[in-house]
Amino acid sequence: MSGYTVADHLVDRLAELGVDRIFGVPGDYSLAMLDHVTHHPTVRWTGCTNELNAGYAADGYGRLRGIAALCTTFGVGELSAINAIAGSYAEHVPVVHIVGAPALAAQALRRPVHHTLGDGVFGHFTAMHADITVARASLTEDDAVAEIDRVLREVRDRRLPGYLVVPADVAAAPAEKAAAALPAPVDTTDPEALEGFVEAARRLLGSASSPDDVAVLAGLQVHRLGAAETLARLLAAGPLPHATTPWAKSLVDESAPRFAGTYTGAASPPATRTAVEDAAVLVVAGVQFTDLNSGMFTQHITRSRTVDVGPRSVSVGAATFAPVELPTALAALEPLVAEVAARRAGPAPTAPLAEPVTAAVAAPDDQPLGQSSLWREVSAFLRSGDIVLADQGTSFYGMAPHRLPAGVTFVGQPLWASIGYTIPALLGTCTARPGHRGVLLVGDGAAQMTATELATVLRERIPAVIVVVDNDGYTVERAIHGPDESYNDITAWDWPALARALGGGDQLDASRVRTVGDLRAALAGASAHPERVTLVQAVVPRDDVPDLLAALTRVLGNRPAPAH
Amino acid sequence: MSGYTVADHLVDRLAELGVDRIFGVPGDYSLAMLDHVTHHPTVRWTGCTNELNAGYAADGYGRLRGIAALCTTFGVGELSAINAIAGSYAEHVPVVHIVGAPALAAQALRRPVHHTLGDGVFGHFTAMHADITVARASLTEDDAVAEIDRVLREVRDRRLPGYLVVPADVAAAPAEKAAAALPAPVDTTDPEALEGFVEAARRLLGSASSPDDVAVLAGLQVHRLGAAETLARLLAAGPLPHATTPWAKSLVDESAPRFAGTYTGAASPPATRTAVEDAAVLVVAGVQFTDLNSGMFTQHITRSRTVDVGPRSVSVGAATFAPVELPTALAALEPLVAEVAARRAGPAPTAPLAEPVTAAVAAPDDQPLGQSSLWREVSAFLRSGDIVLADQGTSFYGMAPHRLPAGVTFVGQPLWASIGYTIPALLGTCTARPGHRGVLLVGDGAAQMTATELATVLRERIPAVIVVVDNDGYTVERAIHGPDESYNDITAWDWPALARALGGGDQLDASRVRTVGDLRAALAGASAHPERVTLVQAVVPRDDVPDLLAALTRVLGNRPAPAH
Repeated sequence: MSGYTVADHLVDRLAELGVDRIFGVPGDYSLAMLDHVTHHPTVRWTGCTNELNAGYAADGYGRLRGIAALCTTFGVGELSAINAIAGSYAEHVPVVHIVGAPALAAQALRRPVHHTLGDGVFGHFTAMHADITVARASLTEDDAVAEIDRVLREVRDRRLPGYLVVPADVAAAPAEKAAAALPAPVDTTDPEALEGFVEAARRLLGSASSPDDVAVLAGLQVHRLGAAETLARLLAAGPLPHATTPWAKSLVDESAPRFAGTYTGAASPPATRTAVEDAAVLVVAGVQFTDLNSGMFTQHITRSRTVDVGPRSVSVGAATFAPVELPTALAALEPLVAEVAARRAGPAPTAPLAEPVTAAVAAPDDQPLGQSSLWREVSAFLRSGDIVLADQGTSFYGMAPHRLPAGVTFVGQPLWASIGYTIPALLGTCTARPGHRGVLLVGDGAAQMTATELATVLRERIPAVIVVVDNDGYTVERAIHGPDESYNDITAWDWPALARALGGGDQLDASRVRTVGDLRAALAGASAHPERVTLVQAVVPRDDVPDLLAALTRVLGNRPAPAH
Repeated sequence: MSGYTVADHLVDRLAELGVDRIFGVPGDYSLAMLDHVTHHPTVRWTGCTNELNAGYAADGYGRLRGIAALCTTFGVGELSAINAIAGSYAEHVPVVHIVGAPALAAQALRRPVHHTLGDGVFGHFTAMHADITVARASLTEDDAVAEIDRVLREVRDRRLPGYLVVPADVAAAPAEKAAAALPAPVDTTDPEALEGFVEAARRLLGSASSPDDVAVLAGLQVHRLGAAETLARLLAAGPLPHATTPWAKSLVDESAPRFAGTYTGAASPPATRTAVEDAAVLVVAGVQFTDLNSGMFTQHITRSRTVDVGPRSVSVGAATFAPVELPTALAALEPLVAEVAARRAGPAPTAPLAEPVTAAVAAPDDQPLGQSSLWREVSAFLRSGDIVLADQGTSFYGMAPHRLPAGVTFVGQPLWASIGYTIPALLGTCTARPGHRGVLLVGDGAAQMTATELATVLRERIPAVIVVVDNDGYTVERAIHGPDESYNDITAWDWPALARALGGGDQLDASRVRTVGDLRAALAGASAHPERVTLVQAVVPRDDVPDLLAALTRVLGNRPAPAH
């Protein structure tokens, strides 16, 4: 451990970018690397039960921190995590995947060592990462520092995962301590493109007689590109009526009076649909219309009256201007909106555009739980600061339409839609933002995929409320196909007993509930003991589905199916 | 479900090749396929808790059946299983990976649908399977039947995994019911090469004055190429002294008197080493020397006196003959060995060459369990017909040196060495060979990786004894590096309670044991109730390691590390 090494440089650079945890599973090829993690002054090792879960945890951490790191071992470890990395790529999450590899000295012998295909070739797994990472490097002693810096900058600037193979001997090789921090990101916006965009946008906005005629539909890339505050200023400059897609849920303060709801094309509530589709001018910011993010591609956006702000280009009607970066474009729109606001004749309207933030209603305590009452009660339970994770099943569809209190962070995965993601992501998001309560909502079929990571949540003493929706199988799939087919069945688990077996201890409260009253009591217990893990197995009818999912399946008709 | 479809053709072909179970996890893109599985007369759907586990289960099934099938959904499902498929490739296991994909009609629109990277490109994941499958196809209506047949033949004949993308609309497309079975495999042996080989082998064997001078070292490919019985006849023709590598453990009847043990290079017992390395003529059959299969490449084989039978070529001394297939080569050696046997002067020796089959010794019941006593007791408990799975940790190293009773099947994974493999593989092997008892030996760190699959083992009522070695972390790694580092720690689980929470019920007996007597009592209970699942959490000292692992680490010295 004497002397500064390549591993030290890598961990120091990660720390410089904001990483204070590295998730993963150890393996003999990565131990030389891990010594430099466990002995680092500000970075902690967080071992997970398996690599897929570690990858999901890193993804969750990266969503909230803007950077994350995962460390696995060669072959077996990295391939177990590859679904999580592909998900990070699809959902624009910057995760650095560090893979401990056989020493270059051993690789040079081309011998069939363990965790390889036995053919003496060590590049197979790098090739498998080509389509799902933005930058890759297999380090050598000579290029390690430069290649680490290159890959980390790409990950940071492109908000996509990167891949670093670190042979055991390279990890331990001497390195110079970096004299300076990595260069800051550069805004690639072209001034003439920006000027052309501003002129065109001013012309289009000239058709608006007040800010009430200008609506904003905001999407995920606003969050990923760090422009949430810029967006908030733009919205306030009107104030402008606005909505988000489900993928961008909680990007804006959903308790604001001009919040018009979550837009899901034809499956949207009427008020939300009107606000977005009938606006005289619509600013679409950082939106990607995927099937589950658009009511199965039923969005109705009229290009001639739309300003469409993409990550690196912006369109006004039919004209495109590039390169213009999204944060710069949103900032440039703010004074233009202020000009529109100055034209307002009367006072700004104060009536809320959407349904109010969900409050508990006077349902009797002995009412059996159903999808509707479950999500209403959970929504009413949320408070500012919570991190809500909704697995891509009835949990996501159940929660998406509910208006959230200010200061709640919502995490879902509607493009990659890998069920089971949220249990490890709870670990990742809550360690990224310590002191905040996690609220995890997951169906039983999804939870069975990654249940072992509850052990790490308990070990790390994450303050959390975990609702496992016990509806006896893959309910979203039943809604699509094969409602009574055996492939949609799963075995019944005793979730409270499971959590206790995984090391629950004193910090665990776990119960099974079947009525609204039981759920309320369990949630009240969670409020009374915010430092604990409260696990609630919520039993609901097998074939009950949230209203939004029912609306989506109606929209779907006979088109390709909407969800796992 | 009316009319014969592409899906029906695929499932019928799998059934024709010997598949009666398809493992997997359903997803919306695969449901159209699964209808034709659940309604098939001889093939059963076996849903697992996640796709990696389903892949491991299929691998286990494929090892014993010679063919297996796995069905997952696009993107998220297939990538979760990809580590298992890579392992099947490394360890020569024929698994057909069927991936349910978006309908071609939807793919043609190039839209960002769920479970994709959002770029409208549907070929990314096929590309990721290029290095780890022997054949791949993305089916269309026009080529589906021909491509299915091509991929299945390659999988069958090459004993490696294959990959089939089945879009939902192609699965449901009409197909002709096949008029004939797939063509049988063809022996590619060249008669002249075979003749040259026989001449050279006869010349070399001429130097042996009796069969006792001719030893055989047999490896995994003898099993994979279906030549175990041919090998048995060859051994009996002497009888010849023989050993196997750890990878091929249980390929031969280890209770036979001429069995010389498990050969692991310099880490072998002296008698085994002498039998192999000092033979006047050595037949090496289907052996691949990988690090963990050769005592870290310390095998000592003298080429000039060796017949080396590979899968498709054979060498005698320095001369190579090809193409000659392994089963054909072994069959050709049998009469040559009979000629040597005819030269024997006296009677064949009857003294066993290796240590006797392990029997319980008179250790006191109150002796605390350790690695040595644990594996001795487990070995003594085994009986003919058992399927023993040893995870690639202390379980594998602990069991490898123990001589097994006749008729025991041993499954390990010393090349790919993906820890946690054996829990799902228990499901796969025991469903491949119904009525046989599974004996699963797995360390706690490994078991945490895939523990959820215990639920499926219980649901399927697999008769099994499961020993979870509770040694408080990654002990094999501690033996290599960082004995007291936090990255080798894991959380303590209550395994009996866990198994009960996963649906244990009446068929589960679960206990934690700390002494030899407790272990004996638990194993006696298993013998008394062979239809049950008996789970034993066996507590052993943290840093105790099996003798073979200690020998390997001594052999290793300062070379690259041996294991995860």
